[in-house]
Amino acid sequence: MEAYFDNSATTRVYPETADLVRDLMTVDYGNPSSMHRKGVEAERYVREAAETLSRILKVNKEEILFTSGGTESDNLGLIGAAFANRRAGDHIITTAVEHPAVSAPAAFLEEQGFRVTYLPVDGAGVVRMDALLSALTPDTILVSVMLVNNETGAVMPVAEIGRMVHEKCPNALFFVDAVQAFGRMEIRPRTMGIDLMAVSGHKIHAPKGVGFLYIRNGAKVRPMLLGGGQQNGMRSGTDNVPGISGMAFSAGKMYDHLKENTEHLYALKQRMAEGLRAIPDVVINGMPVCEGAPHILNVTVRGVRSEVLLHALEDKGIYLSAGSACSSHKRRPSAVLTAMGLSKSDIESTVRISFSEENTVEEVDYCLQTLGETVPVLRRFSRR
Amino acid sequence: MEAYFDNSATTRVYPETADLVRDLMTVDYGNPSSMHRKGVEAERYVREAAETLSRILKVNKEEILFTSGGTESDNLGLIGAAFANRRAGDHIITTAVEHPAVSAPAAFLEEQGFRVTYLPVDGAGVVRMDALLSALTPDTILVSVMLVNNETGAVMPVAEIGRMVHEKCPNALFFVDAVQAFGRMEIRPRTMGIDLMAVSGHKIHAPKGVGFLYIRNGAKVRPMLLGGGQQNGMRSGTDNVPGISGMAFSAGKMYDHLKENTEHLYALKQRMAEGLRAIPDVVINGMPVCEGAPHILNVTVRGVRSEVLLHALEDKGIYLSAGSACSSHKRRPSAVLTAMGLSKSDIESTVRISFSEENTVEEVDYCLQTLGETVPVLRRFSRR
Repeated sequence: MEAYFDNSATTRVYPETADLVRDLMTVDYGNPSSMHRKGVEAERYVREAAETLSRILKVNKEEILFTSGGTESDNLGLIGAAFANRRAGDHIITTAVEHPAVSAPAAFLEEQGFRVTYLPVDGAGVVRMDALLSALTPDTILVSVMLVNNETGAVMPVAEIGRMVHEKCPNALFFVDAVQAFGRMEIRPRTMGIDLMAVSGHKIHAPKGVGFLYIRNGAKVRPMLLGGGQQNGMRSGTDNVPGISGMAFSAGKMYDHLKENTEHLYALKQRMAEGLRAIPDVVINGMPVCEGAPHILNVTVRGVRSEVLLHALEDKGIYLSAGSACSSHKRRPSAVLTAMGLSKSDIESTVRISFSEENTVEEVDYCLQTLGETVPVLRRFSRR
Repeated sequence: MEAYFDNSATTRVYPETADLVRDLMTVDYGNPSSMHRKGVEAERYVREAAETLSRILKVNKEEILFTSGGTESDNLGLIGAAFANRRAGDHIITTAVEHPAVSAPAAFLEEQGFRVTYLPVDGAGVVRMDALLSALTPDTILVSVMLVNNETGAVMPVAEIGRMVHEKCPNALFFVDAVQAFGRMEIRPRTMGIDLMAVSGHKIHAPKGVGFLYIRNGAKVRPMLLGGGQQNGMRSGTDNVPGISGMAFSAGKMYDHLKENTEHLYALKQRMAEGLRAIPDVVINGMPVCEGAPHILNVTVRGVRSEVLLHALEDKGIYLSAGSACSSHKRRPSAVLTAMGLSKSDIESTVRISFSEENTVEEVDYCLQTLGETVPVLRRFSRR
């Protein structure tokens, strides 16, 4: 049996999406910037994708900007907004548990002369609202908080943050990294006070190399990629029509089935959590299972180093992650778990199990059975 | 009959490439940053793609940086190199006929305090070497010249430029936009003195949304996309494995058949040019047909506005371009043709015919026959 539990790293593209992508590469392969019919057809695919995504978010289709993925969306949202609003102030607020695609641009902005405050989190990995309240100043131009943490599945109180930011700093923009949240929960940028929001395709059963940035009408962002002036000059470069259209198709499918997907994911997560708790010296980190995101479980298996467990499991066809996969083979201890106060030895024994609706109860049971057999052996081995 | 002659705007993805892309989306869909086997497999696809491309260029695989396309490669090569080498000087040289993905970053760098010299071209659209020689100064840190012009197919004397740049300015970097050249001719960055070179996937029968930047080992470039540290920190973001692998596959196929493709393309171009010359008041612009790139023909059909001709032809299933397709529906007169000294009225009557090896002699004859019938009618119409 194969059980892929690394869906927060990347997901399998839906076969129907892959068929659509294939057709847009080999049949309707026009360049949307071409004036002839093949261009007009290609442009229609892009427009329909924007319509689909804007319907899901209940925003205008002109507020959807297509990018090459979550990292570009994060970089453009942060760096683009910081430079476009520099005259209004130089202070940026973010959290200690953001994805590197947010924390690295934040560090770059510090080098460029901006001041950055990093908010702490509580033991469950949720940002501390008291810290936010005292960090907001008249100089604050940008606040960046992720919606779902990629390592723990902690859900941040984004609507509450949005209210607080806009009340205390009416000119500040609120940026949300929604890469791990989109497709897994209803998101309403308008009612949540979100001005900018980053989404990635390959986390939602769509192709790699595509994503989007929601930019509220009126929010100022300086473009990064300059050239032919595509997307109203906000992001030059030939539109990735197959990727864009595939992303919208997968998103539509995920949101059409959101309720049953969510129930199924929580059932899998609950079952996995209960089974794990039956193994001695196993700790589930982060928010209570039913309050965190439905698809991410963060687990410390004491006495076994995470890489050892990961490789033992892959021999049985089970794939999960030591920390997040997004930091390209770095071996540094997780900044997220450190910020939550976990000990160094617990961090080294922590894995992430991340589900998709394609996972089954049988796969969970197979994983639990394998863990039940494997963990005691690995522990004996590591004690020698 | 359908005849797609807009291959410089975008190409049809090879069916075998599309099959490979589909498999990498639905079967081997891992994230190369994951530590388990699915990640290792995905990483192998990326490494093999770099090997294929580096073999074609006779460079090291570490010198290939994957991007989201030609525009990102151009932006990163220019802006990244300018900022990384700012201490050495503030002068940049480029030409009056670059693609907007080069000229727009050049204008941005001017705003950022760099001085930019725009070299003129001769009547055939080729950069003037005397102008380059007098523009090179001790402050010059970057020279950017395209290899093949996207509107006229003019081939720039890149090897000669490389020699001149490195002789007169040993510290300057030589950037080449090879988007219209790669796949159509042998390119040897080392012997041609190229330090940085931009390539796009969708111009070579590979997917949209992927490209690469050749960065000579030792050439300094500041990264633009920051985050998980993929590609040695030079370009963060999950690698677009299907796009990367598909691009390398298509590139391999193009270079395996370079000789016969080139002969076929020149035969098509020659046949088209001869047929066009038989129509009164038609002018072929740019270099002599056999000296320009094999796949691009720039033609003025006097007395007919290019958009009118374009739409009349698309009704017959023939697709070509008014100017280049890369400038997203802009209606400004072509900067390239203006720099070559064409009159405004000639520019308004100019179209680009761009071939791929998939085009046939029958398509060329069909196009010529249609033009022979249509042009006199359109001219009568426009004279009224």
